[in-house]
Amino acid sequence: MIDNVIEQPWRGFASDNYAGVHPEVLEALATVNRGHQSAYGDDAVTALARDMIGDHFGGSAEFLPVFNGTGANVVALQSATERWQSVICSSTAHIHADEGGAPESVAGIKLWTVPTADGKLRPDDVQGQCFDMDFVHRAQPGAVSITQSSEMGTVYSPDEVAAIADVAHANGLAVHMDGARLSNAAASLGVPLRTFTSDAGIDLVSFGLTKNGAMLAESVVVLNSERVRGVDFLRKTSMQLASKMRFLSAQFVALLTDDLWLRSAEHANSMATRLRDGVAELPGVTITQSVDANAVFVVLPAHVTATLQERFHFYTWDQVTGEVRWMCAWDTTEDDVDAFVTAVRGETASGA
Amino acid sequence: MIDNVIEQPWRGFASDNYAGVHPEVLEALATVNRGHQSAYGDDAVTALARDMIGDHFGGSAEFLPVFNGTGANVVALQSATERWQSVICSSTAHIHADEGGAPESVAGIKLWTVPTADGKLRPDDVQGQCFDMDFVHRAQPGAVSITQSSEMGTVYSPDEVAAIADVAHANGLAVHMDGARLSNAAASLGVPLRTFTSDAGIDLVSFGLTKNGAMLAESVVVLNSERVRGVDFLRKTSMQLASKMRFLSAQFVALLTDDLWLRSAEHANSMATRLRDGVAELPGVTITQSVDANAVFVVLPAHVTATLQERFHFYTWDQVTGEVRWMCAWDTTEDDVDAFVTAVRGETASGA
Amino acid sequence: MIDNVIEQPWRGFASDNYAGVHPEVLEALATVNRGHQSAYGDDAVTALARDMIGDHFGGSAEFLPVFNGTGANVVALQSATERWQSVICSSTAHIHADEGGAPESVAGIKLWTVPTADGKLRPDDVQGQCFDMDFVHRAQPGAVSITQSSEMGTVYSPDEVAAIADVAHANGLAVHMDGARLSNAAASLGVPLRTFTSDAGIDLVSFGLTKNGAMLAESVVVLNSERVRGVDFLRKTSMQLASKMRFLSAQFVALLTDDLWLRSAEHANSMATRLRDGVAELPGVTITQSVDANAVFVVLPAHVTATLQERFHFYTWDQVTGEVRWMCAWDTTEDDVDAFVTAVRGETASGA
Amino acid sequence: MIDNVIEQPWRGFASDNYAGVHPEVLEALATVNRGHQSAYGDDAVTALARDMIGDHFGGSAEFLPVFNGTGANVVALQSATERWQSVICSSTAHIHADEGGAPESVAGIKLWTVPTADGKLRPDDVQGQCFDMDFVHRAQPGAVSITQSSEMGTVYSPDEVAAIADVAHANGLAVHMDGARLSNAAASLGVPLRTFTSDAGIDLVSFGLTKNGAMLAESVVVLNSERVRGVDFLRKTSMQLASKMRFLSAQFVALLTDDLWLRSAEHANSMATRLRDGVAELPGVTITQSVDANAVFVVLPAHVTATLQERFHFYTWDQVTGEVRWMCAWDTTEDDVDAFVTAVRGETASGA
Repeated sequence: MIDNVIEQPWRGFASDNYAGVHPEVLEALATVNRGHQSAYGDDAVTALARDMIGDHFGGSAEFLPVFNGTGANVVALQSATERWQSVICSSTAHIHADEGGAPESVAGIKLWTVPTADGKLRPDDVQGQCFDMDFVHRAQPGAVSITQSSEMGTVYSPDEVAAIADVAHANGLAVHMDGARLSNAAASLGVPLRTFTSDAGIDLVSFGLTKNGAMLAESVVVLNSERVRGVDFLRKTSMQLASKMRFLSAQFVALLTDDLWLRSAEHANSMATRLRDGVAELPGVTITQSVDANAVFVVLPAHVTATLQERFHFYTWDQVTGEVRWMCAWDTTEDDVDAFVTAVRGETASGA
Repeated sequence: MIDNVIEQPWRGFASDNYAGVHPEVLEALATVNRGHQSAYGDDAVTALARDMIGDHFGGSAEFLPVFNGTGANVVALQSATERWQSVICSSTAHIHADEGGAPESVAGIKLWTVPTADGKLRPDDVQGQCFDMDFVHRAQPGAVSITQSSEMGTVYSPDEVAAIADVAHANGLAVHMDGARLSNAAASLGVPLRTFTSDAGIDLVSFGLTKNGAMLAESVVVLNSERVRGVDFLRKTSMQLASKMRFLSAQFVALLTDDLWLRSAEHANSMATRLRDGVAELPGVTITQSVDANAVFVVLPAHVTATLQERFHFYTWDQVTGEVRWMCAWDTTEDDVDAFVTAVRGETASGA
Repeated sequence: MIDNVIEQPWRGFASDNYAGVHPEVLEALATVNRGHQSAYGDDAVTALARDMIGDHFGGSAEFLPVFNGTGANVVALQSATERWQSVICSSTAHIHADEGGAPESVAGIKLWTVPTADGKLRPDDVQGQCFDMDFVHRAQPGAVSITQSSEMGTVYSPDEVAAIADVAHANGLAVHMDGARLSNAAASLGVPLRTFTSDAGIDLVSFGLTKNGAMLAESVVVLNSERVRGVDFLRKTSMQLASKMRFLSAQFVALLTDDLWLRSAEHANSMATRLRDGVAELPGVTITQSVDANAVFVVLPAHVTATLQERFHFYTWDQVTGEVRWMCAWDTTEDDVDAFVTAVRGETASGA
Repeated sequence: MIDNVIEQPWRGFASDNYAGVHPEVLEALATVNRGHQSAYGDDAVTALARDMIGDHFGGSAEFLPVFNGTGANVVALQSATERWQSVICSSTAHIHADEGGAPESVAGIKLWTVPTADGKLRPDDVQGQCFDMDFVHRAQPGAVSITQSSEMGTVYSPDEVAAIADVAHANGLAVHMDGARLSNAAASLGVPLRTFTSDAGIDLVSFGLTKNGAMLAESVVVLNSERVRGVDFLRKTSMQLASKMRFLSAQFVALLTDDLWLRSAEHANSMATRLRDGVAELPGVTITQSVDANAVFVVLPAHVTATLQERFHFYTWDQVTGEVRWMCAWDTTEDDVDAFVTAVRGETASGA
C-alpha cells in the first residue's frame, strides 16, 4: 500500500517543510542503524554530531537535539529566563505568531512584541522595552529572541546582531536566535555560522535543519553557558528528549559533512533570487521584502493569486494587502522556478 | 566519518529503545520521500496511516502522530481533563516516575498516585481516590491513566481494563492508556488491539511504536471523542506537531502492514519468556514479576549484577532490593538470550 | 507603636488604591466579627452579599469574592477559555501591562493585544484578531477582555459594550469585563450596573471595590454560566480563596448598602472633573483623554511635573511625552483638588 | 441588613479559621486608616511590621505579606526551586492534600510525597527521595517542605528541624516551613520563633496569623536569601500582592505587639490539651495523635460522631477509621471545651 501512496510527486512554493529529505540524510539513518546504542543521547552518533557542532559554533558549544523548532525555542527561552521573566521579540516572530501560544502555555513566558517593517528587531526596539526594570508590575524582560533568517526572508548582518546583543546584555538580557533557517542566513552572508552567532554575542541558538533537507532535526545550541541554566532538564520536562537519539544526530552529521547544509541552503537561496528576478518587473507584482534568503514576499492582484493557487501550492500572507509568500527549498529546481515564473507572467498579463 | 561511527555493534537488555529500526521502517521512509507533501499532517501518508489505525481501533478513531511517549501522554491527559483536574495513576507509572515532571510542568496536572504490587491499578485503587468530589480543596480527579503493558512488564486482561473503565466512568473520569508497549500487550493477550482498548472502555490511548522497531513514532489515538477536547490544538501548543509528518506516519504504515508490529512484539515477548525460563531456577535468582510481555524483573545478588554489567547493558531497578530489569526487543536473538543466560548461570554459580 | 506609625496623614493623586477604607466598611468588619462562621464562603455574610450582587447584576449571577484584581481577572479568564485559547485585549489593558505577566505565568494564557487611542477596544479590533480560527498554528482567541472604566479613564457606553459583545459572540468568544473601577463607570454613565454588563452581553465581570473605599474586596461575577466553567475550582487552584471570607463579603455588603458604592464613585468622578476644569486652560497643560471617570491624563512640561512631584504624589505615565496621570479617590476633597490646582497654576505660570 | 446577619453567634471545633478576628487586630485596622499611603508595600505600616518580623526571625529576614496560606506556600516554593525542580513533602502536607493542586497548576511543581505516621517528615524520608539526582528522567528535588505545627497537630522539635535541614542542604535542597500555625508550634515548644526556623537551618517560611486571630494575614519570610530568588516578582506574578498592603501589615503589627500572637496560641493550645484530657479516658475514644498544639485527633464510634455533629461543628478526617479532628482557636473558651466534653461523655456513655 505504501508503495503507491504518493503516485504523482509534485513540488511547490508553500514551504521549505513541504520538501522531502536529502538522500544523504536517508543514507545516514541506515548507516547508524547497527545494533543497540544507549538511548537519550549517550550514543556514538550524538557524540560525533556534537563535535561537528563544536567546529561550527565553538568548542564549548553545548548541543541538544530536539524534535521541532517550537520545542527548540521554548526549551531555549526557558533556560535563559527566570520563572517571572518575559521575552522581547518581533511581532512577526514565529514564537509569537505561529507556535499556537506554546511559550505562554508550556512555560508561562510573556512576550513583549515590537512591530517591525522587515521582521528584524533593531537595538532601539530592545531598549524601548527595557523600562520599569525591577518594577514588579511589569513582566520583566529576561531575554531577546531574534530570528535568522527572519520570518520575512530578511537576514541580520553580523554587525546588526552584535548591536542587538550589546543592548540586550547591557540590560542584563540573554540573546536567543531562532535559527530554523540559520543555514540560509549563513549562505546569504557568506560567513561561518559563528560569525553571526557566538562571535556576535548570541547566547543560545535554536539550530534547525528540518527546513534544509533533514527529516526532523532541530536543536538547542548553547553558546554562553553563563546565561543558561538547566537546559538538559528542561529538554526533558518539555517533552523534547528523543529516546533513539542517534537518528536525530545522524541527520546533523549527514548535513554537516562536506558542507551539505551550506550547499543546500545556497541552492535554495539562489532559487529564491531567480524567482524574484523572474517576476520583479511584471505588471501588478510588487516585491515587498528584501530577498536575502529563500523566501520571496510579493503583493499580487487577488485574481492572479487565486488562479495561480489552483496549480501551485503557496500561502497568502496577508489577506488585506494581497501579500503572498513563496518559499524555495533545497530541492527546488531551476525548471520549477522557470515554470512558475512563466505562470505568473501569464496570469499577470491576462489579468491586465 | 559516519560510516564507522559504530564500529562494533552490540545488543543488550537495557531497554527496547536501545534497539535500532526495523529495515522495513527504513524502507518506508525512502518510499514516501517523493516530492513535496503538505506539512503538519495534511499529507497522503498520514491519511493512509489514519485508515490503518481505524482498522485496529475502530473507524472513528482520531489519530495524531507525535514525537515521543511523554508528549503523547501529556497531550492526551490535557485533552481529557479540565484546567483544575488531576489524574490518578500507579506510583510506578511512567508519567509519574520517568517523565521529569512533564505533566505537572507543562500542563499543571497533579497526579494522585497509588502504590501497586505489579504496576497495575485495580478498580478499588481508582475508587479510593474518588473522594471529596466537588470539594474545591482537593484537586479533582478528571482521568485515570493505566499503562499497557505496564512498567513492571505485566499486562491487564481486557476484563481488568473494563473494570477500571467502569469505575472511572461511574465517577465521571476519562480513561487513558499509556501504550508505549501496547503491541507487547496485544501479543501477550492474543487479541486484537480494540479488545482491550475501544471495546473495554478506554477513551484515548498513547499508542507508540518506537520501542517496537520504529525510529520515532508515537501517537495519541482518540477512541471516545465525547471525553476529549481540543487534542489537535493541544498537540501544537505542547510542541508535538511535526512539520514533515509523512515520515512519522510512514513508520506506522510500515509496522501496521502485514502485522509487522505484532510479529515484532511476539518475538520480543518470546525472548523475554526464554530468558525467564533460562534463569528461573538458578541459585540466588528470584523472578519478581509475571513475565507477561517483554520485560523480566529479577532480584540478583549484588556481586552478580556488578559482574554482569561489565559485559551486558541492563539497569538496576531498585538499589535496595537488588532488583534488575532485563528488556527484550524486536531485534533480540535467541543467541543473545542464550549467551546471557549462560553468563548469569556462570556468575550465580561462581558466586555460590 | 502602631498608634503613631502614620503621624502626618496626607492625600495625593497617585492612585485610588493609595486611599484608605471608608469608615462604614470598617464598621461592617466589626459587625460581622461575632463567633465562628464556616470558612471559605459558606457563611451568612457571603450569602447576604451574594443576594445584593444578584440585585445589581441579575438573580442568577454567581458571586465569588477574591483577593485582588489580578486574581479576579486571571480566575475569570481561565474559566472562560480552554487550555489552548488566548484572549484579545487592548495593549493598555491591566492584564497585559500591569499584572507582571500573571495571565501567562499562572494560566498559560496568551494575550493578543491591539493598540488603542483611548484604552477602549472597538468591534473591528476584535474582529481583526479573529482570523485563522481553527488553524492550530495560531493561538485561538477564546475570550475578549475589556476594562470599564478603562485604564485611560474612559468609559464604554452600553451600546459600545454591546457592539463588542456581539462581535465576540459571533466568533464564539466569551466577553470579560475588568471592573476594578466598575463603580466609576456606573457613576459616569448614570445607569444601573446591569445595563452595561448583563444586559449588554458581558459574560463575566471582575467586580472590585478596593479602589472605591474597600480594604480588599474583589470578585468574579459570572453573568452567563454557559460560557464559564469551573470558576469555583479555579478560584482555589489560583490561590484566591479566602478562609475567613465573611470579612471580604462584609465589605461588599457595606458598600452595596444604601448605594455607598455609587455615591463614593460619583464623588471621585466629580473630583476628577473639578480637577480637569481647574487646569484645562492653563498654559502648557494638555488634557489627553476624556475625563469620563476618576482619572485625569494630562501632558505637562517636565519641569512642572518634577516640581509638583516634590509636594504631591502622582505618577508619570509616559516618560517620552510627559504625560502624567492624576487619580481621584472616594476620599479626595474639594480642598485637595483646589490646592493641587493652585499648585499646578503656580508652576505652569512660573515655568512660562 | 448587616447588623443582624449573624443573629446567633456560635463557636465550634471545626477549624481555627472558623474563628473571628481578635479585637486588637480590628483596632489596628482603624488606627492605620489615616489618609493615603503608597500602595503595594511601600508604606509606613509595612515598614514597621518588617522591623518586628526581623526581631523574631533575624534582622536580615525579608518579609512579604500575602493573602493566604496557599499563596504563601506557592510563592515560597517557586522562589526556592528552578523551573524543572520538584518538592519533597509529607503526604498529609497541606500543599499536597488541601490546596486544590495549586503548586502543580500555578507553578508546575511536582511533589514527591512520603507517607508518615504523624505528619512529620524524618531525615530518612528526605534522603530516600534524593536519588537519581542529575538524572533528567526524574523530576529533580529542589526543596523540602515541612509543616510546623503539622497538619496532624504535632510539632517538630528544633533538633528535628535541624536534622531535616542538614540532610536537605547536604543534597542541595532548600528547606521551606509551612507555618500557617507557626505560633502554635512556638507556644508548644516554649522557644523563640527563630530557634526552630532561622537557627535550625530553615531557608524560608510561610508565616501566617489568619488562624491565630488575624483577619487575613499571611506572609513569606525569607531567612536565607542565598537559596531564594525573585520572591518579590513571584509574589506579583502569583497574584498575591495586595494594593492596600498597610491593612495586611497592620494585622501583623497588632499580633506581634506585646506577644499577642503568643498568648493567643498558648491559649488555643491549652484548650486542646483540656479537650484531650477531658475525653481521653472515655469509652470508645482513642486519641490518635500527640496533642502538641491546638488540634485533637480522635477515633470515635460512628454514631457518636453523627450525633455530636448535629450540635457541634467539626470535621471527620477519615471516613474509614472514624477519625475526627477537633481544632481549638484563640477564642475557644473553657466553657466551650467543657460543654463539648460533657456532650462527648454523654454520647459515648449512651452509645455503650
